[in-house]
Amino acid sequence: MRMIDIITKKRDNKELTKEEIDYFVQGYTNGEVPDYQVSALLMSIFFNGMTKEEVSNLTMSMVNSGDQIDLSAIEGIKVDKHSTGGVGDTTTLVLAPLVAAVGVSVPKMSGRGLGHTGGTVDKLEAIEGFHVELDKEEFIELVNKDKLAVVGQSGNLTPADKLIYALRDVTATVDSIPLIASSIMSKKIAAGADAIVLDVKVGDGAFMKNEEDARELAETMVEIGNHVGRNTMAVISSMDEPLGLAIGNANEVIEAIETLKGKGPADLTELSLVLGAQMVVLAGKADSLEEARKMLEAVIEDGSALEKFKVFVKNQGGNPDITEDYSLLPQAEFKTEVKATERGFISKMDSENLGVAASIIGAGRQTKDDVLDLAVGIMLNKKVGDQVEAGDVLATIESNKQNVADTIERVRAAIHISDEKPDTKLIKAIITGK
Amino acid sequence: MRMIDIITKKRDNKELTKEEIDYFVQGYTNGEVPDYQVSALLMSIFFNGMTKEEVSNLTMSMVNSGDQIDLSAIEGIKVDKHSTGGVGDTTTLVLAPLVAAVGVSVPKMSGRGLGHTGGTVDKLEAIEGFHVELDKEEFIELVNKDKLAVVGQSGNLTPADKLIYALRDVTATVDSIPLIASSIMSKKIAAGADAIVLDVKVGDGAFMKNEEDARELAETMVEIGNHVGRNTMAVISSMDEPLGLAIGNANEVIEAIETLKGKGPADLTELSLVLGAQMVVLAGKADSLEEARKMLEAVIEDGSALEKFKVFVKNQGGNPDITEDYSLLPQAEFKTEVKATERGFISKMDSENLGVAASIIGAGRQTKDDVLDLAVGIMLNKKVGDQVEAGDVLATIESNKQNVADTIERVRAAIHISDEKPDTKLIKAIITGK
Repeated sequence: MRMIDIITKKRDNKELTKEEIDYFVQGYTNGEVPDYQVSALLMSIFFNGMTKEEVSNLTMSMVNSGDQIDLSAIEGIKVDKHSTGGVGDTTTLVLAPLVAAVGVSVPKMSGRGLGHTGGTVDKLEAIEGFHVELDKEEFIELVNKDKLAVVGQSGNLTPADKLIYALRDVTATVDSIPLIASSIMSKKIAAGADAIVLDVKVGDGAFMKNEEDARELAETMVEIGNHVGRNTMAVISSMDEPLGLAIGNANEVIEAIETLKGKGPADLTELSLVLGAQMVVLAGKADSLEEARKMLEAVIEDGSALEKFKVFVKNQGGNPDITEDYSLLPQAEFKTEVKATERGFISKMDSENLGVAASIIGAGRQTKDDVLDLAVGIMLNKKVGDQVEAGDVLATIESNKQNVADTIERVRAAIHISDEKPDTKLIKAIITGK
Repeated sequence: MRMIDIITKKRDNKELTKEEIDYFVQGYTNGEVPDYQVSALLMSIFFNGMTKEEVSNLTMSMVNSGDQIDLSAIEGIKVDKHSTGGVGDTTTLVLAPLVAAVGVSVPKMSGRGLGHTGGTVDKLEAIEGFHVELDKEEFIELVNKDKLAVVGQSGNLTPADKLIYALRDVTATVDSIPLIASSIMSKKIAAGADAIVLDVKVGDGAFMKNEEDARELAETMVEIGNHVGRNTMAVISSMDEPLGLAIGNANEVIEAIETLKGKGPADLTELSLVLGAQMVVLAGKADSLEEARKMLEAVIEDGSALEKFKVFVKNQGGNPDITEDYSLLPQAEFKTEVKATERGFISKMDSENLGVAASIIGAGRQTKDDVLDLAVGIMLNKKVGDQVEAGDVLATIESNKQNVADTIERVRAAIHISDEKPDTKLIKAIITGK
């Protein structure tokens, strides 16, 4: 087998075999296939796409390039959730205890990584004493006992994906739906998921700028999952504004707790119920999304979702009293209001730039070694569709430095006001793959 | 300027500026732009093509990457000819003295290179004593005095083209018309041509398999030439069979001499007159192709074309008597006839495989260090369209080893015989760019 023939085949829009895909993925991982040939192949994939069969084989080849987490000691169907990236996206913090409360096993592996705010692990560490350093036995025992535990990522998962992603980043081949889909799915599968729920974000601030692309990505991932024996469903959700009101770390923990109490922002609550219902169905705990949703609403109503969160925090070294006393969480020293300079309707909130603003005051990492300030962040006082007068508070910057003039400007520029009330719709589509 | 932005722009089918093209060509040549980014760009060019402006800028950027030959000390308009590669293509040996005989300056630089038979320099070295080691002054003096000299290639011409070509070869980006066109044109321009005549071969044995692609390549090259101030014309000619009857080195010299005497094969004579007429027009020695052709026919008729060849051979150390006594050229020891096994019409002669057959018995180089046997080769006894009976001689293998059983089979397999007389047409199109 020769790499030049594989490139030529894809360039000429012919379907690659499993053996050909394995040849390039494993060859690139072990250094036998040079990057200049892989980049030519990736660009051919950019132009010609991949068939369902090809993208499934690519996914599994990347899974097989490294370690795979074995979660078979955990009872039940393990359902993982992935979001294609959002700003102020607190859903994992809500979803994990929510679905655990109806009996779904949630063995969650989470990373830190780079981003506008910290990863799930960072946010949880805003709770004093909370730690994710569990050994495998502890982790499995906790999930089997209480249905929920979070552990830091370990193992050499999908090294091929890491190499290919790094190459895509410098060769203008990031924006390829089969390459995005296989990258996401390979990581979830290697991490041991039996079933997968996907939240594909769409909008200016998201990776997918329009609904057509978002739908294609979601459908491709659902097809991959079902093709390789992992039941998969997806939601396409709007990123015309950040989800919820909090952008940061400690403030997102509070927002998650409020949502578990039934008092969270409408959009965060709705998305958590929609994604949670898919997780419950895929875990085999309900027969329909409607039934699953009712179960989730019930555990919010009766307090057992909040109770699950408390047990989870306690299990991992944190103080469950934070759910009743938010002053136990890190507090920012300064609060600076950003006010509207005109009247009208909030037409759009540029999530990307709000995320950057939060990151600059310390909520996110620019480089791997940056230390987060878990106390700081941005709280939105308005959402898209709200009517405002000049002088109304649009958002509050919570910081540990006094002068945030630049951040005020950045936040104000990110919040668009227009004369007409915009149409907004959080959930654009539900893709069940059935 | 960033390479990733240049790749993205071409990937998204936007026109690259001169500065962007220079950035990647010069950056790749000096090692600042990595090959994996260049291969992604090349694949984007494969898919999206290039505008006239882009391909001209690419050509000139490759010209500027290295040395350029200065032929300004030679009188008149210097017209160079390029063929996209043929088997048994003796045209250079015919054309150079032919157009020199009507007063066109022919400062010819030729290489050895790899191929089914030797390059022009190799073929000329079949003439004992002939040498191409001329210094610059001798070369210029000879051309100014007698209009014709051949010198070996020197200087670091188009290093960018060499690097890009080597990368294309391993990344499935060879078959791109703008990349082929800019590669050819950059070499001719760097070698000092004021005007260029192109012979684009089409057919199974050629780089361009169909007439549409050949026409696009020819038109692209003519556009580049005229765009960068080098008047350019092209001929599209058939490669359904080798040109002429000889495939080899010494035998092609003989065939060239016969053609200059007016006794050459019809196809070689015709193509030489067509290409030669374009050279004469571009050199400003005639106003129309018709007039130019008549001038060329006249110098064959009156013997002055042959006389020019003799002066040329003498000037460069060879014995001009070879034109009257072919036994002065290297002779092969064995002659083996390949006979037809069925009756019918010759429908096609697979040039590629006939070339390979000649190369295997020693007429061509497989590696750079191979020593050619200038005496050996293949002589065709028939041409496409000829009627044959079983037992008729199709070709004669001239070799210095006795056992050529494999070669017989290869030659026979390359000559196709069918019941119907095929349509043949040597000159498919003439592209003058006006």
